[in-house]
Amino acid sequence: MRNIAVRLRYCGTNYHGWQIQKGLDTVCGMLQRAVEKTVEHKVSVVGCGRTDAGVHAETYVANFRTTSRIPLERLPLALNSRLPEDIAVLSAAEVGEDFNAIGSCIKKQYTYRIYNGAVRDPLLNDRAMFYPVRLDERLMQEAAKHFIGEKDFAAVRSVGTPVKSTVRRLYDCRVTRNGDVIEITVSANGFLYNMARAIAGTLLYVAEGKIKAEEIDSILESGNRTLAGPTLPACGLYMTGVWYNEEV
Amino acid sequence: MRNIAVRLRYCGTNYHGWQIQKGLDTVCGMLQRAVEKTVEHKVSVVGCGRTDAGVHAETYVANFRTTSRIPLERLPLALNSRLPEDIAVLSAAEVGEDFNAIGSCIKKQYTYRIYNGAVRDPLLNDRAMFYPVRLDERLMQEAAKHFIGEKDFAAVRSVGTPVKSTVRRLYDCRVTRNGDVIEITVSANGFLYNMARAIAGTLLYVAEGKIKAEEIDSILESGNRTLAGPTLPACGLYMTGVWYNEEV
Repeated sequence: MRNIAVRLRYCGTNYHGWQIQKGLDTVCGMLQRAVEKTVEHKVSVVGCGRTDAGVHAETYVANFRTTSRIPLERLPLALNSRLPEDIAVLSAAEVGEDFNAIGSCIKKQYTYRIYNGAVRDPLLNDRAMFYPVRLDERLMQEAAKHFIGEKDFAAVRSVGTPVKSTVRRLYDCRVTRNGDVIEITVSANGFLYNMARAIAGTLLYVAEGKIKAEEIDSILESGNRTLAGPTLPACGLYMTGVWYNEEV
Repeated sequence: MRNIAVRLRYCGTNYHGWQIQKGLDTVCGMLQRAVEKTVEHKVSVVGCGRTDAGVHAETYVANFRTTSRIPLERLPLALNSRLPEDIAVLSAAEVGEDFNAIGSCIKKQYTYRIYNGAVRDPLLNDRAMFYPVRLDERLMQEAAKHFIGEKDFAAVRSVGTPVKSTVRRLYDCRVTRNGDVIEITVSANGFLYNMARAIAGTLLYVAEGKIKAEEIDSILESGNRTLAGPTLPACGLYMTGVWYNEEV
């Protein structure tokens, strides 16, 4: 069987997240249906992460196994013709037989966007969290450094699917401002449930003066979710990078 | 009576354009209703231009007359609380009694956005025209210069409301690329119906090799609409600037 990995981009506004749920529109459900119509047999699509309802992806990787001989270069167009406008396959690659979009992933990046203008921006509805009081992104950037490294991130996750360990390696965490848009970019070898949104919420609390940058270390050490900042709304979150040892 | 001008931003996707039409959702209709609820009397809202269905505005100016004594600084919040999420009042100003959002306007700017990636971008649905074949923006930029100046623009307008003259002064017309997004920015002392979209369509024809840059002068001189390029889709058009002699 060929093992095919596809890169997608999607707007999550109209979906109940990635993971298939009976009777609900999900990104995986849409993709799986498009793949099955194209390869003409049942497939099981595996995604690189369970994005929540309303979360977007600039890039996302999924894989499936097929007996179809459809040429790789024809696959994106064939799938896109069967996908709704808010989901697009950007590229397809043939990967090793053991490749698994979530299990083989070595690094992922999320970007959280806050629209920090005085009045909400109608062109960023469902695309960013609106926060009208001016935030000092330099304070947030200073605080962001405290998340970097191999640490226990239990204090910045929501309870979800049980995991063996809450230790992850954060490669980068930085905050930039471009006009009225603040971007919080986080990359790691893996993310716990809601971890990116809770890190963003903790940095927001720093800007609001509710948490001091220096306190982040002890908050992480405590493992106590209630000491960190809130899980920010899904609409501001984008998956912006996914890496593997092989080319996808 | 006080004469109040407001600056708005809106996403035009869900509206049948600016102008009020019976039984249809329009931006002016929404704003007028919000104003009337706020000032507690009937008003007539005048806009700076009749944007079509699906056209967006990063900035747009409208004015209305009122007997209400509501402080200017409270007006944006009061109106926004009565407007849907895809329309926002950014600011309000008290203007001279003769001020008229369309009649007093001395310069307007439109930006046309083309998403020129190989695969459509689900995050730019309804926000840009999708054109998958790589366009040479330098060719378009060279051609754009031919539109600048005081000229008869009859060849790049659709027949709409009768106008006294089809001569307008174009102050600027330029084409820039930022990654996969091409922006065509046009400013003028006034725009004929569909003029910005037809100029964009003509520049697209230049990139496609269907029109030569040097031919633009003779096309404009001919006044023949069929010689210029097509009127591009509304979803790519944004009003991005409106200027007056007084502060608005």
